[in-house]
Amino acid sequence: MTVNHQIRLAARPVGPPKRSDWNFTEEAVRAPGAGEFLVRVQYISLDPAMRGWMNEGRSYIAPVALGDVMRAGAAGRVIESNHPQFAVGDFVTGGFGVQEYALSDGKDVVRVDPTVAPLPVYLGALGMPGMTAYFGLLEVGKPQPGQTVVVSAAAGAVGTVVGQIAKIKGCRAVGIAGGADKCRWIVDELGFDAAIDYKHGNIGAALKQHCPNGIDVYFDNVGGDILDAALARLARGARVVICGAISQYNATAPIKGPSNYLSLLVNRASMTGMVVFDYADRYAVAAREMAGWMAQGRLKARTDVAEGLANFPEALLRLFRGENTGKLVLKIADLA
Amino acid sequence: MTVNHQIRLAARPVGPPKRSDWNFTEEAVRAPGAGEFLVRVQYISLDPAMRGWMNEGRSYIAPVALGDVMRAGAAGRVIESNHPQFAVGDFVTGGFGVQEYALSDGKDVVRVDPTVAPLPVYLGALGMPGMTAYFGLLEVGKPQPGQTVVVSAAAGAVGTVVGQIAKIKGCRAVGIAGGADKCRWIVDELGFDAAIDYKHGNIGAALKQHCPNGIDVYFDNVGGDILDAALARLARGARVVICGAISQYNATAPIKGPSNYLSLLVNRASMTGMVVFDYADRYAVAAREMAGWMAQGRLKARTDVAEGLANFPEALLRLFRGENTGKLVLKIADLA
Repeated sequence: MTVNHQIRLAARPVGPPKRSDWNFTEEAVRAPGAGEFLVRVQYISLDPAMRGWMNEGRSYIAPVALGDVMRAGAAGRVIESNHPQFAVGDFVTGGFGVQEYALSDGKDVVRVDPTVAPLPVYLGALGMPGMTAYFGLLEVGKPQPGQTVVVSAAAGAVGTVVGQIAKIKGCRAVGIAGGADKCRWIVDELGFDAAIDYKHGNIGAALKQHCPNGIDVYFDNVGGDILDAALARLARGARVVICGAISQYNATAPIKGPSNYLSLLVNRASMTGMVVFDYADRYAVAAREMAGWMAQGRLKARTDVAEGLANFPEALLRLFRGENTGKLVLKIADLA
Repeated sequence: MTVNHQIRLAARPVGPPKRSDWNFTEEAVRAPGAGEFLVRVQYISLDPAMRGWMNEGRSYIAPVALGDVMRAGAAGRVIESNHPQFAVGDFVTGGFGVQEYALSDGKDVVRVDPTVAPLPVYLGALGMPGMTAYFGLLEVGKPQPGQTVVVSAAAGAVGTVVGQIAKIKGCRAVGIAGGADKCRWIVDELGFDAAIDYKHGNIGAALKQHCPNGIDVYFDNVGGDILDAALARLARGARVVICGAISQYNATAPIKGPSNYLSLLVNRASMTGMVVFDYADRYAVAAREMAGWMAQGRLKARTDVAEGLANFPEALLRLFRGENTGKLVLKIADLA
């Protein structure tokens, strides 16, 4: 009998999720039925959005029910299969959850090729965060060559891709990140034109310096004071893409709304929310284009690896503390 | 010698403008030079936007300088002319300011016909507020037949027109206004489908009741808590038009940003600012269409008239207290 270790949602967190908000359970792995296959999970994706799924109430996706295995994107390998399209040995990504083994009927599962990019990259630049960056920037932000694109959480899984695509599209890319190391990295390694360290100095003054003609596209992953600072520097006709608000996800007080939202009026600007799932029918096309950019060295991906299923609760918190650089994943197995 | 009584900005107000923020001056009326004409002002338009023009700092239009005659739209009659396109006796509207007489070179002045609609209507439904409603709703809000349009300050100069155009376009129109009288009026007289009295009961619950399928277009004139309540009820793909924020114009604390802005993300919605001046080249077309609707009885205009130039400071405050129903103007002369 193979034991499947799982992490389940035990309580709806107030503020940052505590260890007691999780249940550590184990159960026997069931053999796949007709049309099913069994995946051994190797990497679990850690994403800011997971915090939202833990809350009760209406959102763009149903909350994780108390007692359920925590929802998560993950990558692994098929180890048993009764499914015509997935063979033993295939590498796959899908919503396998925070557990060691997952049964699947193939829905929303993608076969990936670890010779094209390392497996965890399919959870990052070639996975949901990359798709989010690609469609959020290009479809909602609509950057034009020569325009200035600013992205927050610029050293994160989404932000790194937003800035690099902005450069590929002929824009000026300015990233906002926390700490000198991240700032240096996104400029020196990823090719951003400038980086602003939100932990040092005045963000508004830095935006003024680095965006002398204002911000044409602001891609927001953080909300809070940084969103307000960006709103204050919008160019006429600017597009603000609301992708996330990590600064607010653990808030126990009401969310801080953007005080400077009337800049939208003054500048005839727009602020638009996006959810990557709406672009699912075009993921494959985008992934092919992005893989091409990677092959050309124009799009770089970095993975920040935490290890061990039992470390999931603490690893997840690293996102909210801004401790990751690049895409954060949890490695829970060594596979061939 | 004809004396021109004027009201000039004496100080930048903190909070609601006080009488001491104004200077009451008089000067001799100069005869029009070549290419000029002289207007006797009859009606001065009182608009929430005027409060913003009194503040220092960057906006969509330069602030009124201290010592200058207060900027205002106005309507009156040409009484002397050296201008080939404006004859003595013509009725005109333009940015004549808060004064009894104005010299003009004709720039941005429109000749109007008081037999088509009473003169003050050219400051309301057929003037800037009407244009704001028309272009803000149709160009930014993009309502589709059968959709639900909600407008705040629904009994005001802009809101009345927004709701009526929404009905003309086959939408459900829900107005938010202050007090039972205004609410009754916009439903019984203007044909809104429902009205919500923000001074009584819970706005969120009322929006839920009157917008069972959510809000497709929210046209915001007020900001603050009402904007937040509307954001919480957006339908998928909703458009929020940011036209103004009268609840915040006199704020001495930082503006209250919309705490529920992440509803934009959940609902893939957008929030877009608009300034009517951007549509100046299409005012005439819109005014013709709106005059047609008026002639058909489908668009009704109501004017709320205060009287006397000296009462300007107090009359202006009525806007911020929500004391006007329909378009507020200040009548400062009786003309034939």
